[in-house]
Amino acid sequence: MTGEFDAQAFLRERLEIVAIGKPLIHHITNFVVMNETANLTLCLGALPVMAHAVEEASEMAAQAQALLINMGTPYPELVEAMIGAGKAANQAGVPVILDPVGAGATSYRTSVAQSLLDEVTFTAVRGNAAEIAVLSGEAAEIRGVESVSAGADAEQIARRAADQLGCVAAVTGAVDVVSDGKRVARVSNGHPIMCGVTGTGCMATTTIAVFLASGDPYLEATAGALALFGLAGERAAAASGARPGSFHVELYNSLYDLAGGGDLAGLRVEIS
Amino acid sequence: MTGEFDAQAFLRERLEIVAIGKPLIHHITNFVVMNETANLTLCLGALPVMAHAVEEASEMAAQAQALLINMGTPYPELVEAMIGAGKAANQAGVPVILDPVGAGATSYRTSVAQSLLDEVTFTAVRGNAAEIAVLSGEAAEIRGVESVSAGADAEQIARRAADQLGCVAAVTGAVDVVSDGKRVARVSNGHPIMCGVTGTGCMATTTIAVFLASGDPYLEATAGALALFGLAGERAAAASGARPGSFHVELYNSLYDLAGGGDLAGLRVEIS
Amino acid sequence: MTGEFDAQAFLRERLEIVAIGKPLIHHITNFVVMNETANLTLCLGALPVMAHAVEEASEMAAQAQALLINMGTPYPELVEAMIGAGKAANQAGVPVILDPVGAGATSYRTSVAQSLLDEVTFTAVRGNAAEIAVLSGEAAEIRGVESVSAGADAEQIARRAADQLGCVAAVTGAVDVVSDGKRVARVSNGHPIMCGVTGTGCMATTTIAVFLASGDPYLEATAGALALFGLAGERAAAASGARPGSFHVELYNSLYDLAGGGDLAGLRVEIS
Repeated sequence: MTGEFDAQAFLRERLEIVAIGKPLIHHITNFVVMNETANLTLCLGALPVMAHAVEEASEMAAQAQALLINMGTPYPELVEAMIGAGKAANQAGVPVILDPVGAGATSYRTSVAQSLLDEVTFTAVRGNAAEIAVLSGEAAEIRGVESVSAGADAEQIARRAADQLGCVAAVTGAVDVVSDGKRVARVSNGHPIMCGVTGTGCMATTTIAVFLASGDPYLEATAGALALFGLAGERAAAASGARPGSFHVELYNSLYDLAGGGDLAGLRVEIS
Repeated sequence: MTGEFDAQAFLRERLEIVAIGKPLIHHITNFVVMNETANLTLCLGALPVMAHAVEEASEMAAQAQALLINMGTPYPELVEAMIGAGKAANQAGVPVILDPVGAGATSYRTSVAQSLLDEVTFTAVRGNAAEIAVLSGEAAEIRGVESVSAGADAEQIARRAADQLGCVAAVTGAVDVVSDGKRVARVSNGHPIMCGVTGTGCMATTTIAVFLASGDPYLEATAGALALFGLAGERAAAASGARPGSFHVELYNSLYDLAGGGDLAGLRVEIS
Repeated sequence: MTGEFDAQAFLRERLEIVAIGKPLIHHITNFVVMNETANLTLCLGALPVMAHAVEEASEMAAQAQALLINMGTPYPELVEAMIGAGKAANQAGVPVILDPVGAGATSYRTSVAQSLLDEVTFTAVRGNAAEIAVLSGEAAEIRGVESVSAGADAEQIARRAADQLGCVAAVTGAVDVVSDGKRVARVSNGHPIMCGVTGTGCMATTTIAVFLASGDPYLEATAGALALFGLAGERAAAASGARPGSFHVELYNSLYDLAGGGDLAGLRVEIS
């Protein structure tokens, strides 16, 4: 089915489902990007909720349409809430996505990622090459939260993670590679200035979460989400002169326009 | 006194008091909107301070000119700090406002709201219809932090909450309704894109807190604050083409302009 | 050497070092400005990482090129992580900077500042006059996090703090004064609207941290950083009409432009 995926038609249909259903996207995320990912969720027509206390995380997750777990600023109580919410989502049939920010950067983060994988069944994971490699137990070099080298190419890393974890694995970079273990999607939308604003990786994960909320097939939902986010990045870069302050503002505008019926020409997704 | 409230004159006078006194507004708030509400406070000419440790919250609250308690991301230690600060503010005669974000969404949030009402005397509360209904023990439907249905109309909800809690109650929506139990104010400023940016409810509460800091009468202060914030939203929507990234930026600009002597024509407040 | 410091040449060289080395700047900071200071770090060409759990803070600090400790929203576990990270940075030879936000405002904050000074050796400290005065045990008046009066002039305060703490001390205000105990630098870049956006003090500290990462001499690095940040503020004020929403956006743009080779004319630094 190489190249046969009609990303435009797929996204147009999914965005309509989102607009009608206004899925609730429960985030348990890092403290750096809470505002940004909440706003991103709204731009897409979905509803964000942030709730990270152990006392309520499970109850909130069970009534959400997707749960996003992002370990960018982990600490034990937060991880406990993530695990509780993840289990509740699993039981309620709510899709769950993991963003393993900085896995591999400290031994604590690596162990947090491992605990999450042990206790929760994920629908998808998204990270840079090093982060996703670490999820399948491979060695990778990471500085802070930036991938330096991952010992294998993105496709290998995505395939292995998808195989081992039994879920969709997205490795994002200049080209994003997504696999469900059998098929591989390549997304070549995006712009370098996206790395000049913090949290664009986290926002990509939020975009995926919104589309997972609209159901199967998850490979297409994940790849389509990344293409949409990348296209919004391209439009925002053009509108802002690729300067980070203005780009950040235009990124919300562009995604809002695209979600609201804007022209989707320029999506670059191939599935093989 | 229907319709006799001169919102322009009232706000002009209050904004001058704020500009001269630079009231300190102590926020114990959710982690999603801390930056946004601090910036909003500065736009109005007041000083924000965020301090949420039990170890200092009471001491800070006692020296503030208003205390804002927002339960958007509650957890036990934070709630303990809120209660301590609320009591210290009560003792020092500092007005306190509650934003019961998501009350009703989980049993934990509802119990947090109840504890706060049990322990602290509030000058005002502000929320959507479902959140304020929950404060008076009514059933209401809420998804995440969005009101779905509240079983009664906004005026009934505001009146009941004001009666039961003995404070000013503001129910915000397309039309905001504010009551002190006897009188009712209706504010019809605002723009739909305000729901497209996270934290505009929290910002509305911050605006009220700044005006509560300038003293009685609190019904007028609350309604005036909501009208000012709504007018800023209208101006920002016009200046930004109602796209969320640009709107968010223009919201600060507009409020800053209005607070700094800009034209207040267009305020729509009726008190009966 | 009065007036002989060539700030342009110094910053040009340092910015090149940053661009090549992409230093990792570990922040343990307040929850209000995490996103803002991460974005600032990226604008300068460095890499931010936020990691505040005791479980990983020391390990992260030891691999960073600078550690920034900002006590804007302190609580015991966070302070414990700061101390652990500070000690690890000291042992690894990583420069450490302290931003004592609100020291003097509550007895808890003052004691947090004292603990940090007792346990960690700082390369530099940056704060307003009252905050830095409090670090050397002087009485000062502060409301929330705003300096009201500091009992001495900025030069005296900076000299005393530098002497007592054995590090570079920066007192920022309309004119910034920096001392290493022997020499004094005066920086007169900046714009009043910078006080109209929350976190500009914290951002100034981040800018210093990026330059400390490139090594000695720290007095010049600190003063140069403040001049660069102030110049960015001037440019952003001009580009935005000095309205806070637009100014905030333009501040990132301006700093990004300056760091990327933009014209550095207008730096005003004198060292005596």
